[in-house]
Amino acid sequence: MTSTPASLTTGPVKIVGTGLLGTSIGLALRAQGVEVVLSDISPAMLALARDIGAGEPEAAGGAEPALVVVATPPDVAGNVVVEMLTRHPGAVVTDVASVKAMVAEEVAAADSDDAGSRYVGSHPMAGRERSGASAADADLFIGRPWVISAGSASDPAAVTAVRNLALDVGAFPVTLDPQEHDDAVALVSHLPQLAATLVAARLVDAPEPALSLAGQGLRDVTRIAASDPQLWAAILVGNAAPVAAGLRELRADIDELLAGLDHAVAAGPLAPGAMGALTEIISAGNTGVARIPGKHGGAPRRYEVVNVLVPDQPGELGRLFGEVGQIGVNIEDLQLEHSAGARVGVARLSVVPAAAAGLEDELTNRGWSVVAE
Amino acid sequence: MTSTPASLTTGPVKIVGTGLLGTSIGLALRAQGVEVVLSDISPAMLALARDIGAGEPEAAGGAEPALVVVATPPDVAGNVVVEMLTRHPGAVVTDVASVKAMVAEEVAAADSDDAGSRYVGSHPMAGRERSGASAADADLFIGRPWVISAGSASDPAAVTAVRNLALDVGAFPVTLDPQEHDDAVALVSHLPQLAATLVAARLVDAPEPALSLAGQGLRDVTRIAASDPQLWAAILVGNAAPVAAGLRELRADIDELLAGLDHAVAAGPLAPGAMGALTEIISAGNTGVARIPGKHGGAPRRYEVVNVLVPDQPGELGRLFGEVGQIGVNIEDLQLEHSAGARVGVARLSVVPAAAAGLEDELTNRGWSVVAE
Repeated sequence: MTSTPASLTTGPVKIVGTGLLGTSIGLALRAQGVEVVLSDISPAMLALARDIGAGEPEAAGGAEPALVVVATPPDVAGNVVVEMLTRHPGAVVTDVASVKAMVAEEVAAADSDDAGSRYVGSHPMAGRERSGASAADADLFIGRPWVISAGSASDPAAVTAVRNLALDVGAFPVTLDPQEHDDAVALVSHLPQLAATLVAARLVDAPEPALSLAGQGLRDVTRIAASDPQLWAAILVGNAAPVAAGLRELRADIDELLAGLDHAVAAGPLAPGAMGALTEIISAGNTGVARIPGKHGGAPRRYEVVNVLVPDQPGELGRLFGEVGQIGVNIEDLQLEHSAGARVGVARLSVVPAAAAGLEDELTNRGWSVVAE
Repeated sequence: MTSTPASLTTGPVKIVGTGLLGTSIGLALRAQGVEVVLSDISPAMLALARDIGAGEPEAAGGAEPALVVVATPPDVAGNVVVEMLTRHPGAVVTDVASVKAMVAEEVAAADSDDAGSRYVGSHPMAGRERSGASAADADLFIGRPWVISAGSASDPAAVTAVRNLALDVGAFPVTLDPQEHDDAVALVSHLPQLAATLVAARLVDAPEPALSLAGQGLRDVTRIAASDPQLWAAILVGNAAPVAAGLRELRADIDELLAGLDHAVAAGPLAPGAMGALTEIISAGNTGVARIPGKHGGAPRRYEVVNVLVPDQPGELGRLFGEVGQIGVNIEDLQLEHSAGARVGVARLSVVPAAAAGLEDELTNRGWSVVAE
C-alpha cells in the first residue's frame, strides 16, 4: 500500500458520450491515473475531449473495459446501455442519465440473457448552465450527491463498482430505486427548472424599464432558465408522469392564488378570502423551503457536524468518504468549504449525534485532521 | 462648500414605521448627519430602532419635518400618507410601499385641498428574507433601483426631495408612473416570489431522501420562498390585477407543458408534440432570462461601462450619482464591486456608448478616479 491516494476504480473505464458529464468523469478519473477510453458519435466532440485530457479515443484491439459509463442524452441512454452490455460481456455498465425508470425498463425489456445483472443506473446531481466538453471540470462532482439506482436484478459487485466510481470522482453516493429517484428529481430538479422557465418566459415581452428593476430574487429564481432547451425537453419527456403530477399540484395552487387575487380585484384587498388564500400557500412555501438541507440555513439541526481537513489533491475526498464508510458511519449531509488556490479544504460531515465523537476519534487515528466548528 | 460629503436631503426627516425599510433609511440618513425622528405604533419596535441608531422618537413640540417617509405595511400606507399630509402641512410625504397605484388612488381620493401635490410615491427595490429593525442596514439601498412614482398632481420640488432621499441612501432612481411600476414589479418581483413559493410548497410532503438530492438550482429557485407570509399576502392583494394577469399567462404555459407531457405518458417520450411543446417554452425562458440586465451574463452589451472608484464613506455614491446627473448622462445599469473591509469600491456605470468618453472626462475633471475595465 502506497501513501499516494489510490482510486477504488479499476480501469480501463470506457466513457460513451463526451459531453459535459462524460468528459468531466474522464478528467476526474485520469487525474487519479485510471485508464480511460472515450467514444462519441461526433469525431469533433471526441477530439476535443481527448485534447483536454479526458482520455484516449477507443482503438481497435485495445483492452476490454472493466466499466462502461454511458453519458449520452437520456433518450438514447437505454439503447446504448443494452448495446454496451452485449459488446463488452465482462464489463459493468452504468449510465448517468437524469431519469432512471425509463432506462431501467429499456434494459430489462432487452435483457434476454441476464446481462442486465451487470447494469446499475446512476445519476450524478451535478451540472451547470453550459454544456459540452468545453465546460467539463474534473471537480464537477466533488461533494455532490450521486444516485446509485440498482434494480432487483443488479449484481452486488456491479453496485460496488458504480459506487466506487462515484467515490473516486469525489461524489457522495445516495441509494434510491429507479422510481424513487424519478419522483425525487421531479420535485427537486425538474419542477424548479420549469418554474424558472415559466417566470423567465414572462420577460420576453416585458418593457425595458421593468427589467431595470430586476433584483437578486429574480436572478436567483431564473438562473437555471438559461439551460439547453433540447436537452431539458428530453429529460422532461423521459420523466413525464412524475413531472406532470407535480405540475398539476402546482396548477391547483395557482388556481387557489387566482381565486384570492380575483376577490381582491373585485372587492378590494381586504375582500373576504383574499389574504387567507395567499397567506396559506406562502406559509406552505416557508415550510417546504425550511426542509431543504444544506447551506441556506434551512436544515433542522438534527445532526452534528464533524469538520475534517482535506488536502487539495485528487482522490483525497473519495478516500475520506471511503474511510468513513469503513468506520461504519453514514454521512447525512455534506458541505465543502474551499477557497480558490488554497491547499486544503474543509469537509463538513453531518452525522447522527451518537456517531460524532467516535467518528472524530477514528478519523484522527487514521491521520485525518479534525477541526473545531 | 466643505470637503466632507453633504447630504442632498434637508431634515428633519420623519419616518413612520420602524421595520426593515424604515429603520434602514433612518440609519443611512443618520450616517450623513441628517436629523431623523421616528414613529411606530409599537413602542417596542420604536425603542429598538432608536437603540440601533436610526433616529430619535418623535417628541411633542419638536421641529416640523421637511420630509415624511411612510414605511408601514402596504395595506395601511395610503391612510398614513393622507394623515401625514394633513398633520404636517409643510412637509413632502412619500411612502416606500411595494405597490404604488393603490396608494396613489387612496391619496387622490382623500385629497380635498390639493395636499396631494406634496405626495410622491416611491419604492426602493431592496429587501432581505429577514424583516424588522433588527435586520436593518444603512447599506441596504446602495446600488439598488429606487422607483420614483410621481402622479400628475405631484409638485416638481416634491419629486426632487424624494429623488434626493434615494440618492442620499445610495440608491439609483428610476422614474415610473404608478401603473407602470405595478405592472413591472408583478413581472420582476411578485411572480418570481410566487413561483418560488409554489416550488417550495411541493416539498412539504417530499420524502427525506428526495430532499437529500437538493442542489444549487433548487436552492436558488426557492430562496425567496422563506419570506414573511402576511407581508407578502398584503403586497400581492395590493397588486392583485397585474399579478393575476401574470399568473394566468403562467398557467396557460403550464397547460401547454402538461399537454406535451401527457402525450409522452400516453405514447412514449417520442410521441408527436411532446418534445415540441416543451422545447418551445424552455426556449422562451432562454430568451426571457437573457433580457435581465446585470451580473449573471444576461445583459446584451449595448452599453459601455465606465468604472469609477468610490471611497467607502457614507454619501459618496450618492454624490457620484448626483454629479453624473448634473453632467446629464443617464445610468442604464449599475454594478458595485466591493470587498468587505476595503476602503474603496468600484461603481460600474453602464451608459450609452455615445456618452461614455464625455462622462469619463467630466468625472475626471471633478476629481473622480476613472479606471479601466
